[in-house]
Amino acid sequence: MDTLTADDMEALCLGATLLGAGGGGDPYIAKLVAHQALETYGPVEVVNAAALPGDALVLTTAVIGAPTVILEKIPAGTEYVAGVKALASYLGKETAAIMPIEVGGLNTLLPIAAAAEMGLPIVNADSMRRAFPQIEMTVFTLAGLAAGPLSIADEKGNQCVFETTTNQVAESLARAAVIQLGLANAISCYPLTAAQVVEHAIRGSLTYCTEVGRMLQAVKDGADGAWDRFLSESGSREFFNGKVIDLDRRTTDGFARSTVILEGLDGLDTTMRIEVQNENLIAFLDGKPAITTPNLICLLDCETFDPITTEALAYGNRVLVIGMPCAPEWHSDGMLDLVGPRAFGYDVDFVELQA
Amino acid sequence: MDTLTADDMEALCLGATLLGAGGGGDPYIAKLVAHQALETYGPVEVVNAAALPGDALVLTTAVIGAPTVILEKIPAGTEYVAGVKALASYLGKETAAIMPIEVGGLNTLLPIAAAAEMGLPIVNADSMRRAFPQIEMTVFTLAGLAAGPLSIADEKGNQCVFETTTNQVAESLARAAVIQLGLANAISCYPLTAAQVVEHAIRGSLTYCTEVGRMLQAVKDGADGAWDRFLSESGSREFFNGKVIDLDRRTTDGFARSTVILEGLDGLDTTMRIEVQNENLIAFLDGKPAITTPNLICLLDCETFDPITTEALAYGNRVLVIGMPCAPEWHSDGMLDLVGPRAFGYDVDFVELQA
Repeated sequence: MDTLTADDMEALCLGATLLGAGGGGDPYIAKLVAHQALETYGPVEVVNAAALPGDALVLTTAVIGAPTVILEKIPAGTEYVAGVKALASYLGKETAAIMPIEVGGLNTLLPIAAAAEMGLPIVNADSMRRAFPQIEMTVFTLAGLAAGPLSIADEKGNQCVFETTTNQVAESLARAAVIQLGLANAISCYPLTAAQVVEHAIRGSLTYCTEVGRMLQAVKDGADGAWDRFLSESGSREFFNGKVIDLDRRTTDGFARSTVILEGLDGLDTTMRIEVQNENLIAFLDGKPAITTPNLICLLDCETFDPITTEALAYGNRVLVIGMPCAPEWHSDGMLDLVGPRAFGYDVDFVELQA
Repeated sequence: MDTLTADDMEALCLGATLLGAGGGGDPYIAKLVAHQALETYGPVEVVNAAALPGDALVLTTAVIGAPTVILEKIPAGTEYVAGVKALASYLGKETAAIMPIEVGGLNTLLPIAAAAEMGLPIVNADSMRRAFPQIEMTVFTLAGLAAGPLSIADEKGNQCVFETTTNQVAESLARAAVIQLGLANAISCYPLTAAQVVEHAIRGSLTYCTEVGRMLQAVKDGADGAWDRFLSESGSREFFNGKVIDLDRRTTDGFARSTVILEGLDGLDTTMRIEVQNENLIAFLDGKPAITTPNLICLLDCETFDPITTEALAYGNRVLVIGMPCAPEWHSDGMLDLVGPRAFGYDVDFVELQA
């Protein structure tokens, strides 16, 4: 994976939708934005952070807000580059490369558009290899790296820079700003040197996302044994095959929250309940936690195998629910405090995926 | 008025409490902070902006939050200088002088402490010559000057910088940040050149505040004819002499709001109702608007003539209500849209003070 071109966007988008675990925002519009940027500005070089000088500045860019809003408030396209430039200016340094902060959802694709426009390479790494709803929920926080200084930019030219004592305060300030700026804005956070990326990031995320996307495309194309291959190669497991019989959505505190109830299609009287805060966080099988964050809970259309985002899910949808293992980099001290079920307010223990 | 020393703080504090028009925060603690800073670092030079080089950077500092909170959350003392330095650093310029953004309430005194600590002169000017609850409510906004880039700092080391398209957006972002940071923080806004201050600020505010404070001190000391002199020299008028018979307080959206009902002490069956959003905004005499923002509604203790702040007011207090004219600089295009009754949501016409 040396460069990304417009042709690579399909597989990446499919993988990103899956890794969004219901959240991260539907990547469809971001795919169009990235596609257009790659056609306009040419291919983007994909680099490993180790190939950059150790002190080179790597900046991230992402949309921050509620997926339900992001779906309707289409990016102007100017805010991502503006946010990166605002942060670089605040830091008084040149940006050497762009990195996605989350590979999962549309934030996988938006950084590619920004990198293309800025003529910068993109680093094949991220801090989640899935989507999470809060800024502090990264492997960087586990490593003690600061989310700030971070910038927030909107499409009108408003800009914020936050420098905070903890990543939790960064989250609360950024969230408060985003609520004022329309709940779909650009954020550039965790400014790091290439050496820090090498040491602390989840490496190869873009490659992983593309591979997962290609395997899923093979399933969609009806290739022989593709589904089993997808499950085994991604370490995933099928948990439920059911129909949406209840869906309770509310947008509160700047997040899209919902509760999904599925009824089994297997003729047995089983139900699955999924709790959502931007992303699918916990799946209860007949009342018992079956899949928990930080592992991924992904819903796929029963017939097309398209991953379904939280905001697109509808009453009556027939879906497959799979559990995918989170990136191994998550498994270090503090993981459950930061992104386990209790970090989201659920009094539920973490469940090993293969248990 | 060439310098300010610790001895000048009493009169300035008394004047500032009055000009706070019920809000602006009780200056008592700020007086102690300024007093201590002047004793530690020496007197602060008071300058007219015209004496500075035209391109010299003048930065303001103030507390932002709800007076009810400010009363209990005592400044650490580090946040004001930190906020000024953060903004100067963002602007990439040296700070030449400090200016109060509002001369009224504790924000009259805190900048003096910051100036003392930073070894900088203080500019004898401001943007309100009273207190107002929102950032955009300045004569600078009337002149089309931007509130940003502005900084917010807390006592823990958290810092925000906002650069916004309008001063209203600056207000909404700063307010959202302050709600996250504990509702009593340092703000440095409206970075101006000395030339801009000369052209657009309310000049001589610190002198005015000290003079008003001295005149009121004479009243408190029982000097002959001091009350009439105070009223005539300040252009003020006595409107009501009554007792607080109802007081409804609520802290909402980051503001301290209240409704005060006074019953006349003159034996006649008259009542006054005062609507408050941090500051006293409208006084209704028997249901009819009698004093309206931007003119000042000040409550004084009937016996001691001490100005009473909103948060100190209590059931049963016997008070004099006076109307004071706002600074003449307010009377320009857009005043009522920005700081008239309707700017605060009251469907009431502005009332001339001497009408």
